[in-house]
Amino acid sequence: MGLLSKDIKTLDDLFVHTLQDIYYAENQIAKNLPTMVEKAGNSELKGAFQKHLAETQNQAKRLEQVFQMLGKPAKGVTCAAMDGILSEAKEIMSDCDDTEVRDAAMLSAAQAVEHYEITRYGTLIAFAEQLGRKDVAQMLQQTLTEEKNTDQVLTRIAESRVNKMAA
Amino acid sequence: MGLLSKDIKTLDDLFVHTLQDIYYAENQIAKNLPTMVEKAGNSELKGAFQKHLAETQNQAKRLEQVFQMLGKPAKGVTCAAMDGILSEAKEIMSDCDDTEVRDAAMLSAAQAVEHYEITRYGTLIAFAEQLGRKDVAQMLQQTLTEEKNTDQVLTRIAESRVNKMAA
Repeated sequence: MGLLSKDIKTLDDLFVHTLQDIYYAENQIAKNLPTMVEKAGNSELKGAFQKHLAETQNQAKRLEQVFQMLGKPAKGVTCAAMDGILSEAKEIMSDCDDTEVRDAAMLSAAQAVEHYEITRYGTLIAFAEQLGRKDVAQMLQQTLTEEKNTDQVLTRIAESRVNKMAA
Repeated sequence: MGLLSKDIKTLDDLFVHTLQDIYYAENQIAKNLPTMVEKAGNSELKGAFQKHLAETQNQAKRLEQVFQMLGKPAKGVTCAAMDGILSEAKEIMSDCDDTEVRDAAMLSAAQAVEHYEITRYGTLIAFAEQLGRKDVAQMLQQTLTEEKNTDQVLTRIAESRVNKMAA
């Protein structure tokens, strides 16, 4: 069990709590992506999810390195926001029979996932810099860059193909 | 009660469902911002929350206009992601005694809120364009621009003041 919000007294605590939140989120994303790969109809979308699965597993490992650099055990705290985004995605994936509409819904969910990660990594980098941990900030920056790239790829797919087919 | 995911058959349904999701989210944000205004220690942050409260109320009204343009009643569907972000923010606000750390946590939560809105409005605009509703896309674009501006203001405050004070 990670650091509960009632135990947060310093920016250092808040930093660790936020790390635990995103560590939980990355692991949940990694668990859910294989179903998204399987359910995606559009081949470009399927490929993007497949690539992002490998990337997500690597990002979780990178977080484990960060925990190690801080001398803390790698632990997660339940992230209700990510659980919410993923449970809505799962519902639509199982309920929607139309491949194109399902792809559009999965794309929308995947972009919500990316934006959650973008905001959390942005915050973590700002905290790490304030705490004088440039080494940690640099590690997290690699992930932030990857997340932003993934979001751009998803936007391009959404604009160019899936939405048009679903309309 | 809004459109459930099991009732989504077309991109038009998905569009209405996503509108209902963000309508619920805007109303929840409007309910929670007064406490954030009250709890903020940093005067710049308090001002930003205050300004965003008025903006959020206006964005909810704008969504009501969009529902009207589509000939649909303005309804919300529970958005578990927004509930998750806000419940975590509420926990930290009530548990954390240190003003600066609490401000940093509220800023982080507020940016998660903004990013959720940015991704949802981005998706809605893409859907509206695909469905040939440029008029609706333009309305939603106004809100997207406001949300991006708010996120930038929050980033500036985070980088310049609150995090430094909390360290």
